[in-house]
Amino acid sequence: MTQQQPAPESFPTKKIRRPNKNAPIVVTPPSSLTYPNFSFDIEYRDTKTKARIGKLKTPHGTIETPNYIFCGTKGAMKNLSMPQMREAQADIILGNTYHLMIQPGADLIEKMGGLHQFNRWDGPMMTDSGGFQIFSMGHGSVADEIKGRGKNREKSLLKITEEGAKFRSYFDGRELTLTPESSIQIQRQLGADLIYQLDECTAFHNDRTYTEKSMHRSHRWGDRSLAEFARTHDGRQALYGIVQGGVYLDLRRESCAWTRDRPFFGTAIGGSLGGSQEQFHEIVQLHSELIHPGRPVHLLGIGKIIDVFTCVRMGIDTFDCVSPTRIARHGWALMRGNPEERINLRNAKYRDDPTPLDDSMDIPASTQYSKAYLHHLFKVQEMLALQIVAQHNVAVITRLMREVRAAIRAGTLDQLQREWLPE
Amino acid sequence: MTQQQPAPESFPTKKIRRPNKNAPIVVTPPSSLTYPNFSFDIEYRDTKTKARIGKLKTPHGTIETPNYIFCGTKGAMKNLSMPQMREAQADIILGNTYHLMIQPGADLIEKMGGLHQFNRWDGPMMTDSGGFQIFSMGHGSVADEIKGRGKNREKSLLKITEEGAKFRSYFDGRELTLTPESSIQIQRQLGADLIYQLDECTAFHNDRTYTEKSMHRSHRWGDRSLAEFARTHDGRQALYGIVQGGVYLDLRRESCAWTRDRPFFGTAIGGSLGGSQEQFHEIVQLHSELIHPGRPVHLLGIGKIIDVFTCVRMGIDTFDCVSPTRIARHGWALMRGNPEERINLRNAKYRDDPTPLDDSMDIPASTQYSKAYLHHLFKVQEMLALQIVAQHNVAVITRLMREVRAAIRAGTLDQLQREWLPE
Repeated sequence: MTQQQPAPESFPTKKIRRPNKNAPIVVTPPSSLTYPNFSFDIEYRDTKTKARIGKLKTPHGTIETPNYIFCGTKGAMKNLSMPQMREAQADIILGNTYHLMIQPGADLIEKMGGLHQFNRWDGPMMTDSGGFQIFSMGHGSVADEIKGRGKNREKSLLKITEEGAKFRSYFDGRELTLTPESSIQIQRQLGADLIYQLDECTAFHNDRTYTEKSMHRSHRWGDRSLAEFARTHDGRQALYGIVQGGVYLDLRRESCAWTRDRPFFGTAIGGSLGGSQEQFHEIVQLHSELIHPGRPVHLLGIGKIIDVFTCVRMGIDTFDCVSPTRIARHGWALMRGNPEERINLRNAKYRDDPTPLDDSMDIPASTQYSKAYLHHLFKVQEMLALQIVAQHNVAVITRLMREVRAAIRAGTLDQLQREWLPE
Repeated sequence: MTQQQPAPESFPTKKIRRPNKNAPIVVTPPSSLTYPNFSFDIEYRDTKTKARIGKLKTPHGTIETPNYIFCGTKGAMKNLSMPQMREAQADIILGNTYHLMIQPGADLIEKMGGLHQFNRWDGPMMTDSGGFQIFSMGHGSVADEIKGRGKNREKSLLKITEEGAKFRSYFDGRELTLTPESSIQIQRQLGADLIYQLDECTAFHNDRTYTEKSMHRSHRWGDRSLAEFARTHDGRQALYGIVQGGVYLDLRRESCAWTRDRPFFGTAIGGSLGGSQEQFHEIVQLHSELIHPGRPVHLLGIGKIIDVFTCVRMGIDTFDCVSPTRIARHGWALMRGNPEERINLRNAKYRDDPTPLDDSMDIPASTQYSKAYLHHLFKVQEMLALQIVAQHNVAVITRLMREVRAAIRAGTLDQLQREWLPE
């Protein structure tokens, strides 16, 4: 495999004189960028909340927002083909730059015609910058902290410098480097519609000093990402900037202003959003007042049903989370009208339950199999179970998003939330 | 879970006086049985070989023969839903009594409306008697012998008596018993269209003395299976008898005559078919001359492409084998026109191969994904690969069977074989 290293001449940063190698690399970002093949039109605004209905146009199609971006981490949905994603009415998927640059490599995907051609998804697609995985694996993620496993996992992040990040491949242990410039170049090779600046994703345990220093570096990385994006801009992709600042509201304010003043197409909310629901809400709410009001807003890595209801009211347009397909692998089926959001089909009470997952759905995965059958498949470890439940979960989420959009227009979001999540 | 033990009064054998508990249990089978909802019509016979085209009618539909029965061992196809099986043009599937009686249990499946309702296959279905797994795991299978692993595996067969077989559950170690009567009763509960007598499947290493003794017991078990079948015959199922006798041609002759003289609906060829291709051909050829000429003939557990070409010429009507879905899990894709029958997608040469598996197929699994993409999916262990390749393999086999039937009618079987398996 070829290591993903761009040609030296494509690094504008190489030309910058610096007093020492730890000194900031300051690049002037473009003052404006046009995205001729993209648009985001806000078609309706809720009168009581910041919820809104939008149309997000990309070269691979237009999606309505709020919407949910399903994670095809390594270039494939877990246990689901793209026709199955379409059957579940998914509109947009995401690929992870970190995983794909490692295996099969961006050169290979480019040679095969880009990620759309490679994995046969013909709709809108997003890639992240690769930063999230590098840093969440490097620092230990928020989930690791909560579960107390942070210190036991091998850290793959080797070094963060002003230039970029050195890390070990999860696949074969190779040492790799990702810079703002190479992240953009790799995302160009992958060819997704919506792409990301490189940022460092700070965790809840990072203190204010570190979070501030990291945020400023992420801003410089964002400017470098913008410069590299502008250098090779061909109209096929649109760039999102990312707000960082952890749980520190003054830093968040500064980062909101930073993204607002740059010619990004969209805004993403990244980093730690706090240790409690209250803090989470406070932070997301803050963004809704300070970020660019006309750009699509993506909330990175958040996607429980309750989060969707909470965050669309704060102006979030798109969500992404691995959970719909990940939880399926552990027997969890998402349930409309269940206070817990989901049921576990491994539970013995489903052993002889003849009812389907949800006969009000319009997909065979939800209506054609008894819970007893699915319970049996999990018990004997038949992988068909994963396919059926993953597709059901995706279909539940796409239904959620359709119903949320209809409820925003009808002013009935509170009522819809009570239907989905009864007390 | 409820252990599958029929009520004592349903054992006709209990009423039989015997001098000691090892003495034969001899039951007079019914002299005739009618199968009003079933038929097997031979519509065309090849002039040069024993190949024939048939129509096998069951309560769940009619299939053309020669045909291939795909194995849904534990009540599900490996990585494939029934709609995916239909898309791959499969006509008939098989469930394994041994696995299903253990988990989830025949009582549960009956309560859920039978295996058709449980796994949502609405076409013709076969179940075996459970014997094959008990005895192949007990003795060590032919494959185990070849691979020298026979002695290392834990034997699940505890004891064979005249009454039946005692064995340990693969699932939880429980001790279970299967008799000819309980096998029929369980197969009634499962509700497949085509069902089997209990037999002992002898292996290549069994000597003549054991094979003969075992065959005679299998015949007595067959008579008991027939008697039990007749006792509860409601027209919804049809019973196959099984020829045993190992590699001993005189025993095979005796066993052919035994099945021919019993009112079975179909004939199956079981047991060891020898250690070489020559011996295998000699044994199968022998059956074609001695078994009942008007009944459908099933060859148990054999299903390579070369075997299909060889055995349809000897009058085999149906095949079953786990290989199309099993080999997919190891990266093997079946290939029309490849002397090896298949390719392994894990091979590094497919890393950047942009071609699909076979663009002359009519199924997206075969035409929509590059070998490079499938190679990548196997490399990162994405289970989507198994789904795609399993469906491709099933589709290749159903195409094989369609083309074989057309070639029998057209008298071009030799030419077709050269197309599928060039030298």
